[in-house]
Amino acid sequence: MKTKLTSLVILLTLCISSFKAENPIRIVFFGDSITQAGVGPTGYITQMTKMIAEKGLGGKYELIGAGIGGNKIYDLYLRHEDDVIAKKPQIVIIYIGINDVWHKTSSRTGTDADKFERFYNALIKKIQNSGSQVVICTPTVIGEKHDNSNENDGDLNAYSAIIKKIAETNACKLIDLRKAFMDYEVKNNVENKASGILTTDRVHLNEAGNKFLAETMWETIKNF
Amino acid sequence: MKTKLTSLVILLTLCISSFKAENPIRIVFFGDSITQAGVGPTGYITQMTKMIAEKGLGGKYELIGAGIGGNKIYDLYLRHEDDVIAKKPQIVIIYIGINDVWHKTSSRTGTDADKFERFYNALIKKIQNSGSQVVICTPTVIGEKHDNSNENDGDLNAYSAIIKKIAETNACKLIDLRKAFMDYEVKNNVENKASGILTTDRVHLNEAGNKFLAETMWETIKNF
Amino acid sequence: MKTKLTSLVILLTLCISSFKAENPIRIVFFGDSITQAGVGPTGYITQMTKMIAEKGLGGKYELIGAGIGGNKIYDLYLRHEDDVIAKKPQIVIIYIGINDVWHKTSSRTGTDADKFERFYNALIKKIQNSGSQVVICTPTVIGEKHDNSNENDGDLNAYSAIIKKIAETNACKLIDLRKAFMDYEVKNNVENKASGILTTDRVHLNEAGNKFLAETMWETIKNF
Amino acid sequence: MKTKLTSLVILLTLCISSFKAENPIRIVFFGDSITQAGVGPTGYITQMTKMIAEKGLGGKYELIGAGIGGNKIYDLYLRHEDDVIAKKPQIVIIYIGINDVWHKTSSRTGTDADKFERFYNALIKKIQNSGSQVVICTPTVIGEKHDNSNENDGDLNAYSAIIKKIAETNACKLIDLRKAFMDYEVKNNVENKASGILTTDRVHLNEAGNKFLAETMWETIKNF
Repeated sequence: MKTKLTSLVILLTLCISSFKAENPIRIVFFGDSITQAGVGPTGYITQMTKMIAEKGLGGKYELIGAGIGGNKIYDLYLRHEDDVIAKKPQIVIIYIGINDVWHKTSSRTGTDADKFERFYNALIKKIQNSGSQVVICTPTVIGEKHDNSNENDGDLNAYSAIIKKIAETNACKLIDLRKAFMDYEVKNNVENKASGILTTDRVHLNEAGNKFLAETMWETIKNF
Repeated sequence: MKTKLTSLVILLTLCISSFKAENPIRIVFFGDSITQAGVGPTGYITQMTKMIAEKGLGGKYELIGAGIGGNKIYDLYLRHEDDVIAKKPQIVIIYIGINDVWHKTSSRTGTDADKFERFYNALIKKIQNSGSQVVICTPTVIGEKHDNSNENDGDLNAYSAIIKKIAETNACKLIDLRKAFMDYEVKNNVENKASGILTTDRVHLNEAGNKFLAETMWETIKNF
Repeated sequence: MKTKLTSLVILLTLCISSFKAENPIRIVFFGDSITQAGVGPTGYITQMTKMIAEKGLGGKYELIGAGIGGNKIYDLYLRHEDDVIAKKPQIVIIYIGINDVWHKTSSRTGTDADKFERFYNALIKKIQNSGSQVVICTPTVIGEKHDNSNENDGDLNAYSAIIKKIAETNACKLIDLRKAFMDYEVKNNVENKASGILTTDRVHLNEAGNKFLAETMWETIKNF
Repeated sequence: MKTKLTSLVILLTLCISSFKAENPIRIVFFGDSITQAGVGPTGYITQMTKMIAEKGLGGKYELIGAGIGGNKIYDLYLRHEDDVIAKKPQIVIIYIGINDVWHKTSSRTGTDADKFERFYNALIKKIQNSGSQVVICTPTVIGEKHDNSNENDGDLNAYSAIIKKIAETNACKLIDLRKAFMDYEVKNNVENKASGILTTDRVHLNEAGNKFLAETMWETIKNF
């Protein structure tokens, strides 16, 4: 009974806020498999949409997922015209880099650091020139151990430093997902396990991981 | 004395042919370090230019090198607007793929076969849409042994098959450099050496290699 | 009825030959997962044992499997005392090398060519010094395509050449499995498929593969 | 003049102590290129020998280098009989593991963690059974950056944890070189450089590195 009432209140709130909103802020999430799964039932974009609705801000934001599994920075560059610019978003959140590092060890087809930077800068320039604001993120995790003993930690830390530099160069807002995730692991992963806290398989997020990602990104998005 | 006379004849021939030529056919060679070196003193583009001049066809063709060391298919995609389309060539010879394979073993940053194909198709489309004709080449060698015992031979053969498919799909002329080079090796590399016949270091071409490449490409180019 | 009679004849033959045999020739098959599976219901050692029995030679040979999945040449070296020498065989068939090549691309833990040779020579010396005769084999396949376009073909061909040299150096009989398998593929794999002819997964043998391996090895073993 | 006197004093001390010492403690340093260079003019074994002499303990210890460039754990196993056991040392200091990790990224021929452990345990057992005491070390560095952003840091940390476990299992003394080096870097490498502090090339030690290594090892050795 209580639940039904709550649902009704949420529904009403959603209706009201959507009536109010004349120009919702369109945000495209541009990324890899995590973002592709982000629009699934428990994905981070889905959870963020609900979260926003519960805050009564449903009409203020339009969240669009544009993730494709296996994507690296140059794949985003290849498809940015169709999948981002054509959608005319105000904000583009780029969350990429895991495969650029991971595929070095999984399939010997990672991305060299200098090319990662070159493609990232070129991509940002293209999107900014089209009139959208760009927010970029450091990569989350490949392995949840928090003592820097996951095989790819060296590169993940190095590529995070590159991304921070790219954010400065291009005057982009930065969401330091890697730091947020590592801080979370230190607090919550007491057995220093490689997976099962925020991920199912060391990389892809479980429901808690998607929730934490949604909350972390929201801290930046709410200011738009 | 004889040499001077010959030089004079060549010079005259060059002058005559260049007077005749009102619209030379502009050809851009788009590739990696081999093409970057191709415009050097003994590079294949330089040798081809001389070869063409000696045939009295100097004014008929304008050869432009657009090679950058370390480039893979996606690097060509990134710079095709500035380095190819902006030059408005009639013909574009794309000679790429060695690094896409080689970097798998040298730095774990090669290109997956499916992405190689996707970027190649996208690149050809962009260049064809700009009005240029595209010619594509299979990769030459990483190691000159001719019994398929060079470490990367498996992939070089596989990526060559992909390139042949791409040529068909996009109705491009194909220059089968790999076959030409392997046939040459079978005939001339009697000790089955890994380098020193057409290359200095298993990959980059020595003067003979550049000459053979120029001659091989010429068989296709002369028909334009 | 006829079958029963045949069975009876085989049985009798078996009995007779086993009575005759006072000292069966003990043969240890020393290798990786293929040899580990070799003692399974359809494995090549099991099939060879049946084959030998059907020829009425059941008592002449004692076949022992000593294969462990994932083994490379240095793993054989580590366990040769317990798993080979302790069994006092007359003959040791070493069939190794696939993982030494394959793990380069699957997990970046392959074996350098020079160390492959060094460990192989050391292993043979230890076994020969213990009084056993050593027979060695070239590696079969990682991918069944017969135009040298499987990713690891270059190395498989190179390591096969090394194994032939090792056989000469140590005066070992050689079973050229790679050549036998490739000849079979050329004849029988008309669609040039990567798996499904002799293997289930490009490497591990299906029943036909085990049968062909048993028959190929038998050609050498029958002379002991 | 003063120098000459000092030299004389040292010489006398050396003579005296070497007369006193009837049974110097023989220590074999068993490792890779760093240990091979350790017996060079500025190498850590050479520096430690001098250091010991200056302390007047020259006759108490006999230090023997047994390092070979490129060695991994299984290479030590292969040559432990000739290079360690045959020398009948009281103490064996094993300092290995860098190549086991590094060759994963440099040549795709690293050592899997489980095999690293298996060979290490087998090696220790063989040496302990021969009557020597074994001391083992965690690996130093592949890159001197101290924020865990060197590419191989993840694995170096993971393999260090394995080595600590191996020390416990086999009741070996442990010298935690990695921790010592990292602590040094934090204090002295203010610009977070990848090389030039203790190494020449991110791995091989410069004179300061050899000195620091000698001092670090001495803290354990002096107790024998």
